[in-house]
Amino acid sequence: MIVEAPYLMFLGDVPDQLAAKTAQGIVDWRPEWCRGQLRLAGCKADLKIPDMTIEEAAKAGCRTLIVGVANAGGVLPDHWSETIVKAIEAGMDVASGLHARLASKPVIAEAALRHNRRLTDVRHSSETFATGKGTKRSGLRLLTVGTDCSVGKKYTALALEKEMRKQGLDADFRATGQTGLFISGRGVAIDAVVADFISGAVEWISPAAAPNHWDLIEGQGSLFHPSFAGVSLGLLHGAQPDCFVICHEPTRTTMRGVKHPLPSIRAVIDLTITCGKLTNPAIRPAGISVNTEHLAEAEARALVETLEKEHDLPTTDPIRFGVGAIVANLLRLYPHSKAA
Amino acid sequence: MIVEAPYLMFLGDVPDQLAAKTAQGIVDWRPEWCRGQLRLAGCKADLKIPDMTIEEAAKAGCRTLIVGVANAGGVLPDHWSETIVKAIEAGMDVASGLHARLASKPVIAEAALRHNRRLTDVRHSSETFATGKGTKRSGLRLLTVGTDCSVGKKYTALALEKEMRKQGLDADFRATGQTGLFISGRGVAIDAVVADFISGAVEWISPAAAPNHWDLIEGQGSLFHPSFAGVSLGLLHGAQPDCFVICHEPTRTTMRGVKHPLPSIRAVIDLTITCGKLTNPAIRPAGISVNTEHLAEAEARALVETLEKEHDLPTTDPIRFGVGAIVANLLRLYPHSKAA
Repeated sequence: MIVEAPYLMFLGDVPDQLAAKTAQGIVDWRPEWCRGQLRLAGCKADLKIPDMTIEEAAKAGCRTLIVGVANAGGVLPDHWSETIVKAIEAGMDVASGLHARLASKPVIAEAALRHNRRLTDVRHSSETFATGKGTKRSGLRLLTVGTDCSVGKKYTALALEKEMRKQGLDADFRATGQTGLFISGRGVAIDAVVADFISGAVEWISPAAAPNHWDLIEGQGSLFHPSFAGVSLGLLHGAQPDCFVICHEPTRTTMRGVKHPLPSIRAVIDLTITCGKLTNPAIRPAGISVNTEHLAEAEARALVETLEKEHDLPTTDPIRFGVGAIVANLLRLYPHSKAA
Repeated sequence: MIVEAPYLMFLGDVPDQLAAKTAQGIVDWRPEWCRGQLRLAGCKADLKIPDMTIEEAAKAGCRTLIVGVANAGGVLPDHWSETIVKAIEAGMDVASGLHARLASKPVIAEAALRHNRRLTDVRHSSETFATGKGTKRSGLRLLTVGTDCSVGKKYTALALEKEMRKQGLDADFRATGQTGLFISGRGVAIDAVVADFISGAVEWISPAAAPNHWDLIEGQGSLFHPSFAGVSLGLLHGAQPDCFVICHEPTRTTMRGVKHPLPSIRAVIDLTITCGKLTNPAIRPAGISVNTEHLAEAEARALVETLEKEHDLPTTDPIRFGVGAIVANLLRLYPHSKAA
């Protein structure tokens, strides 16, 4: 699944900023791809990038209209179709993160057919995958795993990509969720794949690579989350990571959407190794990433130091303290991946 | 997903008996539901039940035409449509285990619409599931788990249902695969569910029940299979079993379809408990089921005795030695489930 940049961000008339969370994530991580935003009358979200009409966006070179908003029920409101059809007529592809398929609106389907433009519903994989094989592939792989959903797995993998590329390393973020997919322009929304093909889909998004190449694979869910652990395990097996970074949100008391308590970081490390060995016997932890946004600076620093000592692993909050310490550890553990 | 019995088994013109494996499984376990078979010219499979025309089957009370055959690519050959349409016109529903959907043939879709008959593609769940919640449900649950795929998990769960019902216990087999689904007339092909809903789908097929009621849940894959472990873990969490039976095929050297060696029974017990605790802290093993079809009688008996001692668990081959020892253990562990 490939989404071509640059993007025109379509926000429709969503009622608040939260509904544009995916679009905001794309702007945060790929500002250079986001040429402008298009908002309908009544839209309450704002990405703080230039407002553009379809005509202006086409002139500015936009290749894809991104429907990166969430609304109640994931539906595609009828009155958005006009703008989407106009974008198609102006030569753009359309990519949507809504649950409803773009082609479910006949006017959109017909326009795409007539103008030979691509409609991409990132929540629905159209790719046919093989089942996972578990065979060792060349190249280095790091997976971000979590004590829960939404604890910073995507953010950590993206921060690692940014820092490693800055240091001249050969590193690619590999998206497994819709926001990550728009940010990298490729990947698979792994939770939307048919269950039999979870690990196979991950093998597909992280193919064999040069021995010094890093794939930084976005984790999903948690091996300890009663709703999504199956996705997390298939992802772990397909990713066959050489190492993993544990992501954690220290103020959370129960796992997202359920009543289960969070597992300890130690439990996550142990089970990730136990299960991950199946497709990579050399798997090991390489760092801890803590989302300390709800802690004061001093508290955050103290927590990071405590966890670092407790687990003997470089520990950081990527936003507050950067990921330099984890990258340094990766270069120590895998010296052949150093920049030439 | 409910498939109404009795069945007329449609074999098309498949080239050998193996292609009718699903149909044969249904006849083996539910002979009373399989009123007859319908074979086209050239068919090389035979279920050894009466051959019937559509007219005869309708008269005999058949409610559903079962397409329980596999053929190369899972396609639905054009020349099968005529028979399927005739069955619909005679008032039957149609249920298929093929990968291709029945409604992908316009003549079949139109006939079903015209006659208000149900088309069921058991490989494609049309049910909308919630994500799993992991909340404790009342009733007793047993899950069959495996050292690999195709080691007797379905067979063991069905044999337990049969024996427990014979002893007057309140027990239901819960299907999670296509053959099991036809055998019980309900269930979900869990490997065909969208990844996010694996455990939620299992919660749906095994709802809260009376405290002395047993759900005997058909396992899938193995926590150690690099292709399918995600399915197995989601199934384990959704099933929240009180106990589990480990199924094993002792002559197999590598896991099905991959090059990985089989895990030990001990490793399967340990990881099943480690992971299963998340949704049922009291989870424990209750028996071992060995498929000894490739061993001589003396060898089989010796192996069963060795494993029984090694793991301190009732061990049996359900076909050779029955499952009485495992049922006795269940009644010892859960005395309140005894028949009144």
